[in-house]
Amino acid sequence: MELSEIYAPVQEDLDRVEDVLKSVRRVDFSHLSELLDYSLKSSGGKRIRPMLTLLVGKSYDYNLDYLLPMATAVEILHTATLIHDDSIDKSAVRRGRPTVNKLWGEEQAILLGDYLFAAAGALTASTENLRTIKLFAETLKIISSGEINQALNAFNPEQTSEQYFQRVAKKTAALFVLATESGAVLSRAPEESIQVLVGYGYNLGIAFQIVDDILDFIGTEEEIGKPVGADLMQGTLTLPVMLLRQYYPEDNRVKRLFRVKDDPDDFKQVIELVRNSSSIMRECYQVASVYCAKACRNLKRLPDQVSRRSLFELADYTTRRRH
Amino acid sequence: MELSEIYAPVQEDLDRVEDVLKSVRRVDFSHLSELLDYSLKSSGGKRIRPMLTLLVGKSYDYNLDYLLPMATAVEILHTATLIHDDSIDKSAVRRGRPTVNKLWGEEQAILLGDYLFAAAGALTASTENLRTIKLFAETLKIISSGEINQALNAFNPEQTSEQYFQRVAKKTAALFVLATESGAVLSRAPEESIQVLVGYGYNLGIAFQIVDDILDFIGTEEEIGKPVGADLMQGTLTLPVMLLRQYYPEDNRVKRLFRVKDDPDDFKQVIELVRNSSSIMRECYQVASVYCAKACRNLKRLPDQVSRRSLFELADYTTRRRH
Repeated sequence: MELSEIYAPVQEDLDRVEDVLKSVRRVDFSHLSELLDYSLKSSGGKRIRPMLTLLVGKSYDYNLDYLLPMATAVEILHTATLIHDDSIDKSAVRRGRPTVNKLWGEEQAILLGDYLFAAAGALTASTENLRTIKLFAETLKIISSGEINQALNAFNPEQTSEQYFQRVAKKTAALFVLATESGAVLSRAPEESIQVLVGYGYNLGIAFQIVDDILDFIGTEEEIGKPVGADLMQGTLTLPVMLLRQYYPEDNRVKRLFRVKDDPDDFKQVIELVRNSSSIMRECYQVASVYCAKACRNLKRLPDQVSRRSLFELADYTTRRRH
Repeated sequence: MELSEIYAPVQEDLDRVEDVLKSVRRVDFSHLSELLDYSLKSSGGKRIRPMLTLLVGKSYDYNLDYLLPMATAVEILHTATLIHDDSIDKSAVRRGRPTVNKLWGEEQAILLGDYLFAAAGALTASTENLRTIKLFAETLKIISSGEINQALNAFNPEQTSEQYFQRVAKKTAALFVLATESGAVLSRAPEESIQVLVGYGYNLGIAFQIVDDILDFIGTEEEIGKPVGADLMQGTLTLPVMLLRQYYPEDNRVKRLFRVKDDPDDFKQVIELVRNSSSIMRECYQVASVYCAKACRNLKRLPDQVSRRSLFELADYTTRRRH
């Protein structure tokens, strides 16, 4: 199934998320408005998280008064974390465009991120649903704590795959959980269904990040919208490199990694090793598939609707996507 | 009246705010716990904002179940904005101690600030009061937008005093309003009283910032806990320098300011000019006093309690304080 088919049950309402985003971009202060236009307009982002919030809602009491602001809040929170990430990593390119920090400087990027956290919080608050509001705040705590951990361990060659999965759970899966859980809560799903959807969001989020980490190596710069191997060069060890370490423990190129920080030749060689190892890629995809299967495990318990089919298909798509 | 007397009606409960802060500092992740300990422990901060939340509540339905988390949230939000400010300004010292960015680097400071925004949001959400929750999110929007404006205008010698007051309203007064308005709302003050306390917070906040901006020039490094003239050196034009420009429009030292960015001699000379101009200082204090008077204008309409007296005295103290 193509992405457009997966999105079909909520595509029309996802277009209305763009309208809510436009209303967030309309502010009195022209410079801020410019920053918001640039960072919130659709630019190759798949809007997968807000799509999830809407899709989940479709099976229950689908009320756009709550679901639209929440879906928008999830997307804005995601954008805010990316802006802070790029600023911290001094990344110059994201989704094929210059980053906010590249165009307006780090200061502006940090403060814009802060503004967006607040804007996302305000939209969440507008749902007037306390459970969702609390979940939103807890999610940002989890994400930031995961990012702090990642920054702390940058260029640490001793990181274990256990640490990797913990980090991924915090920095990516938590936001997917926010997307699905808020959609379920706001559409008054029964508690058992909410928990199924929490599990779906969590496992799909981990699979999604693993695939992102694979694409970081095997995609082209055009496909992934940023330099190949960017994570590694920023000192982040991801699953492909961890497997490389296991496969070739005695390889000097691997052993030397991060020993001399910032050696571009070391990075290039390791990136090539990963790209050329079909067994590493296969194993990474297998791990991602296991998480996708976990995500779908209990979906059958949800109402048999077209939106449930999309959830299944989205899990399947996750390991097929190229960007 | 001394500060300790002003605080007296709520001092005991303000100590309990420290306990709530301690509970926020207890997290599973030891590195984060260390960052939280360092940034949230009392270190010469006056805790004036949480004190206001409690003090305001004292005149109405004083319920610590709501007021304690909210007062703590206000203090944490304040701390988070300072951490991001220091990181952006690359400040090395705050309240006489090395800043978080100095000790742990900018990345950690940015992410810790994000975590603290979320922690403050979670505490606010725990009050389960939607008006307060929405106010919290809007306040962070206002503060960030004010900071974006300040960063945009850094080293711009053309800034007007109108822009200064707008900026101060956003970056400082908004947080004072959060402190007083949330205290009033959570203790179920009548709407008319809430509005009086919003006005009090707003005007007191502006006066407080003006005095901060004066002390930035006339205090000693020990008193203000950071280098004298730090704002100016970071490119922020404050009221004293704006008046200097009015008083000595033809002085070359003033005209040259910000023309050659980062010239330490220019800064030193301007700092000395401000310090030595008693008329500028007098006028700044007069402006601050006008705001304090405005803050107190409608206080008489509030219940005649010991806490109201503290609000009056706090306004008076604001222009007397030395740090």
